[in-house]
Amino acid sequence: MAQTVAGAGRAAIGDSEFDRDTAITPRPGEPGAFDAELSAGWTIISAVNGGYLLATAARALGAVLPHPDPFTITAHYLTPSTPGPAELRTEVVRTGRTMSTGQVSLRQDGTERLRATATYGDLTALPDDVRTSARPFAIPPYAACVGTDDAPEGHRPIPGSTAIADRLDIRLDPATAGWAVGAPSGRGEMRAWFGLADGRDHDPLSVLLAVDALPPTAFDLGLTGWVPTVELTVHLRARPVPGPLRVGITTRNLAGGFLEEDAEVWDSSDRLVAQSRQLARVLVA
Amino acid sequence: MAQTVAGAGRAAIGDSEFDRDTAITPRPGEPGAFDAELSAGWTIISAVNGGYLLATAARALGAVLPHPDPFTITAHYLTPSTPGPAELRTEVVRTGRTMSTGQVSLRQDGTERLRATATYGDLTALPDDVRTSARPFAIPPYAACVGTDDAPEGHRPIPGSTAIADRLDIRLDPATAGWAVGAPSGRGEMRAWFGLADGRDHDPLSVLLAVDALPPTAFDLGLTGWVPTVELTVHLRARPVPGPLRVGITTRNLAGGFLEEDAEVWDSSDRLVAQSRQLARVLVA
Repeated sequence: MAQTVAGAGRAAIGDSEFDRDTAITPRPGEPGAFDAELSAGWTIISAVNGGYLLATAARALGAVLPHPDPFTITAHYLTPSTPGPAELRTEVVRTGRTMSTGQVSLRQDGTERLRATATYGDLTALPDDVRTSARPFAIPPYAACVGTDDAPEGHRPIPGSTAIADRLDIRLDPATAGWAVGAPSGRGEMRAWFGLADGRDHDPLSVLLAVDALPPTAFDLGLTGWVPTVELTVHLRARPVPGPLRVGITTRNLAGGFLEEDAEVWDSSDRLVAQSRQLARVLVA
Repeated sequence: MAQTVAGAGRAAIGDSEFDRDTAITPRPGEPGAFDAELSAGWTIISAVNGGYLLATAARALGAVLPHPDPFTITAHYLTPSTPGPAELRTEVVRTGRTMSTGQVSLRQDGTERLRATATYGDLTALPDDVRTSARPFAIPPYAACVGTDDAPEGHRPIPGSTAIADRLDIRLDPATAGWAVGAPSGRGEMRAWFGLADGRDHDPLSVLLAVDALPPTAFDLGLTGWVPTVELTVHLRARPVPGPLRVGITTRNLAGGFLEEDAEVWDSSDRLVAQSRQLARVLVA
């Protein structure tokens, strides 16, 4: 089960569950093509988590583009991915001095699951000026927040397999966890401390995971159905420093069977490291 | 020059400057390929406006996908477009019963200018439930807002050509127009009434224009340089009813030489018809 953020035996970036499960292998003789093995460890119910998929796709782009970090990446989720082999085909769209753009398609059994387009750059090469007016949202200390395994029996957060919960260290703000005991706030908010269970520190790839790994804000709106992502865009704005992330997600516009999830991710130095938005479909349970 | 929103002689959707200038012509014998003529009428300085480009790209996708409306569309702006001929090549990525996904590439003289991916659906087929918690932002009445031609001499909003200003009917909230007289608020906000100068009502395509047609929020932050868009994503959530739109744009995260512009678009029935976000680069003047 999830360790505490301060847990011993931390896994290193590059040598952790997350790194092993997002690994890509170049196909000999097919430039820009890679194989991956989607792990059953990152599933909710039977679907592979969208942030995990996005991170895997981003690794493939990082392998073909001359810049290391996704500044902005957009994925369209075409069909549900399942654990098992996947094939990734990349295209270098444009390379420039400071930024480059690429595209990647992830397929399983000949069916396209995800298509992503991204512009990469080097986050460490950006100037130091930070004139953001954004301030971190309020959240109780880690120890005062609740884990997904704290929910009483019969009120497990998500029915079915939640294998991904074992790989994450998510502690929800109790103010946004009422839905787990049948008392959603109705505000459409989700706030949490976010770490990896094996203690791996964060990098841009795990931030891609962070924006899509909390329970859906729809739960806090009193909805109980599935909320599949149609499209997810993430802006990476800084490399996170070591320590847990804080992820805050808000939904304002639930209408016509769709909603947006707007996420912001803060690192432990109070830097806004990512902003994301997804369009998701609301399926009645 | 711009007419008032209530002006006589309104152009119809399908028969207006905007429709003529975003027209696409299928290439005989090349399925999915189109020609367009980018108009000099939608330029700022020498660059073709990004929202106009996005609308042109969206028309091409609308011509090849089985659904009419872009639910979510993302464009990466690779190189600056110039007035003149352009070639659009589309790819149908996936077609489903209620949604379909496509991709389009816009080129000039063999150089790719823009690549967009979008998922289309039918906005009129969506259920009527609107449970949004978003409320329209406050803005003074149209008559109490200021046009770009109201700025005193020497304080024109943007140096160089602003041909696009003649095709739009933008009335800025005076609270977000101080930068035009050297007194930016510093908050990074821009709010305006938005119409087309020839009185054409709005549709999803003109909403794509609306999210990228106001002066940059960077001006309200006291910056005067150019702010080229890297990537722009728009979620269309409802068809706008007739009448002017209200567009509100906010920037919170100016850091490392980049900023986000978050836009929301409200129609005259107080429906939130679109949400958008772009990542833009801040170039020092």
